[in-house]
Amino acid sequence: MSGSSFGKLFKITTWGESHGKGVGVVIDGCPAGLSLSENDIQKFLDIRKPGQNEFTTLRNEDDKVEILSGTFEGKTTGTPISLIVYNKDHHSTDYGNIASCYRPGHADYTYDEKYGFRDYRGGGRSSGRETIGRVAAGAVAIKILNELGINFCTYVNSIGELSIDKNNFDKEEINKNPFYMPDALCASKASDYLKNIIKESDSVGSSVECIISGVPAGIGEPVFDKLDALLAQAVMSIGAVKAVEIGDGLSVTNRLGSENNDNFHMNNNNVEKTSNHSGGILGGISDGSDIILKASFKPTPSIFKEQQTVTSDKQDTTLSIKGRHDPIIGPRAVVVVESMCAITILDLMLQNTGTKLSNLKKIYN
Amino acid sequence: MSGSSFGKLFKITTWGESHGKGVGVVIDGCPAGLSLSENDIQKFLDIRKPGQNEFTTLRNEDDKVEILSGTFEGKTTGTPISLIVYNKDHHSTDYGNIASCYRPGHADYTYDEKYGFRDYRGGGRSSGRETIGRVAAGAVAIKILNELGINFCTYVNSIGELSIDKNNFDKEEINKNPFYMPDALCASKASDYLKNIIKESDSVGSSVECIISGVPAGIGEPVFDKLDALLAQAVMSIGAVKAVEIGDGLSVTNRLGSENNDNFHMNNNNVEKTSNHSGGILGGISDGSDIILKASFKPTPSIFKEQQTVTSDKQDTTLSIKGRHDPIIGPRAVVVVESMCAITILDLMLQNTGTKLSNLKKIYN
Amino acid sequence: MSGSSFGKLFKITTWGESHGKGVGVVIDGCPAGLSLSENDIQKFLDIRKPGQNEFTTLRNEDDKVEILSGTFEGKTTGTPISLIVYNKDHHSTDYGNIASCYRPGHADYTYDEKYGFRDYRGGGRSSGRETIGRVAAGAVAIKILNELGINFCTYVNSIGELSIDKNNFDKEEINKNPFYMPDALCASKASDYLKNIIKESDSVGSSVECIISGVPAGIGEPVFDKLDALLAQAVMSIGAVKAVEIGDGLSVTNRLGSENNDNFHMNNNNVEKTSNHSGGILGGISDGSDIILKASFKPTPSIFKEQQTVTSDKQDTTLSIKGRHDPIIGPRAVVVVESMCAITILDLMLQNTGTKLSNLKKIYN
Amino acid sequence: MSGSSFGKLFKITTWGESHGKGVGVVIDGCPAGLSLSENDIQKFLDIRKPGQNEFTTLRNEDDKVEILSGTFEGKTTGTPISLIVYNKDHHSTDYGNIASCYRPGHADYTYDEKYGFRDYRGGGRSSGRETIGRVAAGAVAIKILNELGINFCTYVNSIGELSIDKNNFDKEEINKNPFYMPDALCASKASDYLKNIIKESDSVGSSVECIISGVPAGIGEPVFDKLDALLAQAVMSIGAVKAVEIGDGLSVTNRLGSENNDNFHMNNNNVEKTSNHSGGILGGISDGSDIILKASFKPTPSIFKEQQTVTSDKQDTTLSIKGRHDPIIGPRAVVVVESMCAITILDLMLQNTGTKLSNLKKIYN
Repeated sequence: MSGSSFGKLFKITTWGESHGKGVGVVIDGCPAGLSLSENDIQKFLDIRKPGQNEFTTLRNEDDKVEILSGTFEGKTTGTPISLIVYNKDHHSTDYGNIASCYRPGHADYTYDEKYGFRDYRGGGRSSGRETIGRVAAGAVAIKILNELGINFCTYVNSIGELSIDKNNFDKEEINKNPFYMPDALCASKASDYLKNIIKESDSVGSSVECIISGVPAGIGEPVFDKLDALLAQAVMSIGAVKAVEIGDGLSVTNRLGSENNDNFHMNNNNVEKTSNHSGGILGGISDGSDIILKASFKPTPSIFKEQQTVTSDKQDTTLSIKGRHDPIIGPRAVVVVESMCAITILDLMLQNTGTKLSNLKKIYN
Repeated sequence: MSGSSFGKLFKITTWGESHGKGVGVVIDGCPAGLSLSENDIQKFLDIRKPGQNEFTTLRNEDDKVEILSGTFEGKTTGTPISLIVYNKDHHSTDYGNIASCYRPGHADYTYDEKYGFRDYRGGGRSSGRETIGRVAAGAVAIKILNELGINFCTYVNSIGELSIDKNNFDKEEINKNPFYMPDALCASKASDYLKNIIKESDSVGSSVECIISGVPAGIGEPVFDKLDALLAQAVMSIGAVKAVEIGDGLSVTNRLGSENNDNFHMNNNNVEKTSNHSGGILGGISDGSDIILKASFKPTPSIFKEQQTVTSDKQDTTLSIKGRHDPIIGPRAVVVVESMCAITILDLMLQNTGTKLSNLKKIYN
Repeated sequence: MSGSSFGKLFKITTWGESHGKGVGVVIDGCPAGLSLSENDIQKFLDIRKPGQNEFTTLRNEDDKVEILSGTFEGKTTGTPISLIVYNKDHHSTDYGNIASCYRPGHADYTYDEKYGFRDYRGGGRSSGRETIGRVAAGAVAIKILNELGINFCTYVNSIGELSIDKNNFDKEEINKNPFYMPDALCASKASDYLKNIIKESDSVGSSVECIISGVPAGIGEPVFDKLDALLAQAVMSIGAVKAVEIGDGLSVTNRLGSENNDNFHMNNNNVEKTSNHSGGILGGISDGSDIILKASFKPTPSIFKEQQTVTSDKQDTTLSIKGRHDPIIGPRAVVVVESMCAITILDLMLQNTGTKLSNLKKIYN
Repeated sequence: MSGSSFGKLFKITTWGESHGKGVGVVIDGCPAGLSLSENDIQKFLDIRKPGQNEFTTLRNEDDKVEILSGTFEGKTTGTPISLIVYNKDHHSTDYGNIASCYRPGHADYTYDEKYGFRDYRGGGRSSGRETIGRVAAGAVAIKILNELGINFCTYVNSIGELSIDKNNFDKEEINKNPFYMPDALCASKASDYLKNIIKESDSVGSSVECIISGVPAGIGEPVFDKLDALLAQAVMSIGAVKAVEIGDGLSVTNRLGSENNDNFHMNNNNVEKTSNHSGGILGGISDGSDIILKASFKPTPSIFKEQQTVTSDKQDTTLSIKGRHDPIIGPRAVVVVESMCAITILDLMLQNTGTKLSNLKKIYN
């Protein structure tokens, strides 16, 4: 199986290549009775759409989504929701030397090794366009979670050496700058920083943070399907992610237990934690505080500098990639990270509904 | 489902609580024809066995494994391998205030919220003893992978502020010190460092690195079941892991594309990479170079310092944990990380056998 | 989950409603390197296409399939194959009293109970058009199986009280009559028989048999995923099937062991069975002889006679269904049964490739 | 994978061989808060225990079940329930010619073909003892279903040419005769009939019927995971089953639509069906009426008459099976059929809890 499905009860299956006829997703197991229109999904796709500013690829795509099944009179019916986005800008026939040689940092070589050959047009299945299906499905999951009181705040945390200053954190700012940074000053610096990197024909790494509030305590399965374990799979499965952290992440390695444990206390008859180093998860199960996740993205592997590589028929060569590519991945990945987190959480919430016999009786008696 | 299974074709299901009758695992889908004895498994369990030195818990357990099914005349038959380890030291009846209050950093509160109540004896299912099943299954996976030319090198990379010096790296040293560090000098410093932490009634974080050589190019599924994505789930599902990194991990975020891309070149008719920042994975598929993974462990949450917390019946209280606990998690987790990586890779290798029609014909014609 | 996926490694996910925009399927895990064109699939869809003779519904559909992804230069790439058939004849807006009342023998009532409401247009998701995705995916599975030397012979065995005479069995005849019967005489009688049933505004039951030759011994998993168990699920999941039999099926219940056991003997160094009462499966695993399966279809529930029923708002009423409907299900289901069998067998063959350690070594060493 | 797991949310994994150390099952996903003791399970195992009367094998087994995990203070905790039954009577070392030749009607040949060799002791994994795990897990599922108002009535419907007379149906009689027949007269005839078959060194087929009342309408997923499709897999996966029928089953093939449709009518504000030919399932979803399933069992393949067969090293030979074996399978399979039906229904009920958005809100708001 090529592993194109994710989730047990809210299960998505994505399909499509960069330069095939289109890309899409089938959502199986969406609860019935949700109001859903194409516009609910489109607004999420518009965030990751290419060509929106000088920092993204020039590829010209509308990325208009069409609902093919699973809704009736504006509501989800509980049957599979098939969503499609036709590729518009896929007619070019000149793929230059990509067809015959392996781009460093890309999956050309590994696809050839795995499958014996590959669809070399624009990266084929390994293209970033594969995430369109994730975002379309994520839009549906987020809509349901919102109805259950769960909300997302996702943003770019750092670009190269520039990190946001938490003291400047302004949620409203996120959608106001092309980098989806919650810190106007940092975004402004990033603009100059990136212009210089583009000038150097290079690219740079970045990180994305996702904070999820309102998840009730008790979500996540205690062993292999821990909430944090499935979030790690979900987010690491996004191309270019090289690290996933939960809560304080990497920094816990040189911390004392007495510093890192979050104490509990009562607040108005609610159990609360005095701090949230754990990022809202204890033993793989949500603890009712904010869930915090960070993803580290490598620099875009498509750079214009000449690189050493080999051809498909195993000769040394050099390669200069043409076209315009995003010099950073983070900003367009913000909505992808958010989508994958939403799908993961909704799926675990559905799995959890019958965990207590008392809940089963609530539904069936 | 409580998420106690992992893997699609080489599928493990663990069971058991800290102070129940025992813990175990059922391995479903182990290839037939592998020589397998209890000793093959025992030597891995012995690594994570408690009470081996002054830096681990005093709990007295032999952790003797018994094969209950799935082998015949010393070979695996292809049917489920059921493995059991009886708990010896589970007769104590004094769990003190653990029964009635929530330990900070532990899963007591989240289990209560999820299930309505919990087996409070020694952490129940959320105890580190749950990993015995993982290690027993991992021993089987590692044996198969070894026969296919795949080898593991796993060690503690850092303890608190002490990190190994890669210049001192000595693989032989790993099994010679109680910290499983490949750097004798660092291990020696760690000993003093930890004695001090123990004296302070505290604990500290650590990190574990796993390097896997010999994995052929082409392993891993390209979208959600990427090799790195499933490794992330596998390793993040180990209690206390807060970050998983592949290859250069977190450090890619402030690197340029021209620095981070691994160039290809030919070496004796083989495609090789000039560097290995990617940690052996491109587009979710193995590229034939070493697979490199790092896990960050939080400090052991069981500390002896008094902590503020709440009771199960929702009253503020303070708690002092008794007994002896590991002051760091990394050393005993080395074999758990290795096991989870092995299970993940073997499962993906089994899934991959029919990916090319030509392979199918090789098996069936 | 609405259960729209089938298979572990060759995994299909169908979507679509009778009167939505279209129906389709995503095939995940198709081996790479198979020559595949739309025409390979179309010829199977044409068999189940409506409106082909006086014994089928008048609905006017071309059922033209389009490959949206997963092939490149005429070959499968190993990535998901998305197939779509747009609904042409779905513009009618008059669904009469189907919208407001429950048709006997249909799923109207159960969908309402499950989901709270339903897409009542032409049966929505419970329409026979859902099988288009199955047949499209089946066409791909059959093509691969053919390349591995496995062949299918599927036909209508009985219509109402008329059963084929095995002495008249002529495989070539199957595609020559509108009932897909391998007995010209029986088919001719069936024509008159059915005309009379149509005249009576009624419908009648039927049965379909599928014989699969060339499956190597050793396919099928020994416990819950037995070859016969998964075939039973696969075929019982086709709407209107009420019984699935393997080999001699129901008739084994009044047979002696000495009559029913198939003896083994050697023939030219091959193990052969003297008879095939078992239908090619022993202990859930193929034994190398023909696999034989029979499915019993209930009469089409859409009949024109007035029936007693209730409305969605729970009032007694009577109902007369309009339009033209197939008076029997068997003939158009022949290709659906064959497709489901093919998908099941291919999936189990893929799962089986790594069952022996020696096979793993054949692939990876 | 050897396919030893069944179910998505209430998931069972069985293990063990006829003459290994024991057999068992791990139940993952059992709802928390159910009162459960070993006795709750033992009473179901006692029904299938061997050696209870002159019509069953002499094998001497207590089949005492032990709960190894997953309960605390008499209640299920929501974590995996591991159940074990040690094999007592497995010390014999004389397996006669079973080791070296293929028993007709058994899985000896197919296991050898699949795995390269087999555990030949008493059939190994393909032994009827594999069903102990199913019955132990079934006991737990039945207990939960009972609490939700769902009840089972399962019995032997026919033995060879003897079928029960529905006019004599007496539910109380089922547990009073060794054949689990609800018709005392038929059971009495069966006794003589079977004694004669035993005298002839032969065996005979049988059928088992299961009637499930109280399942609410709306259970089952509409496409591949239809309630009837999964029941078919569940029951066909029991060794020796050759046909599965739902409702009127096979007999629908020569029935008219007007005869076979179940009309709806109102009764005290409840939707009811005037008849139940459908066996309680419409479109794969329960309709609130009794679910009716019938399984056809082949004669026990172990007969004492001399049979022609071949050896493992591919020579013609003859075989006479020794020991005492059940001359019919049905009576001891009654509890196995019931168990598999219960597991299937409970799993689908768990999957269904979040199908409506309104249910999700009921649980989480």
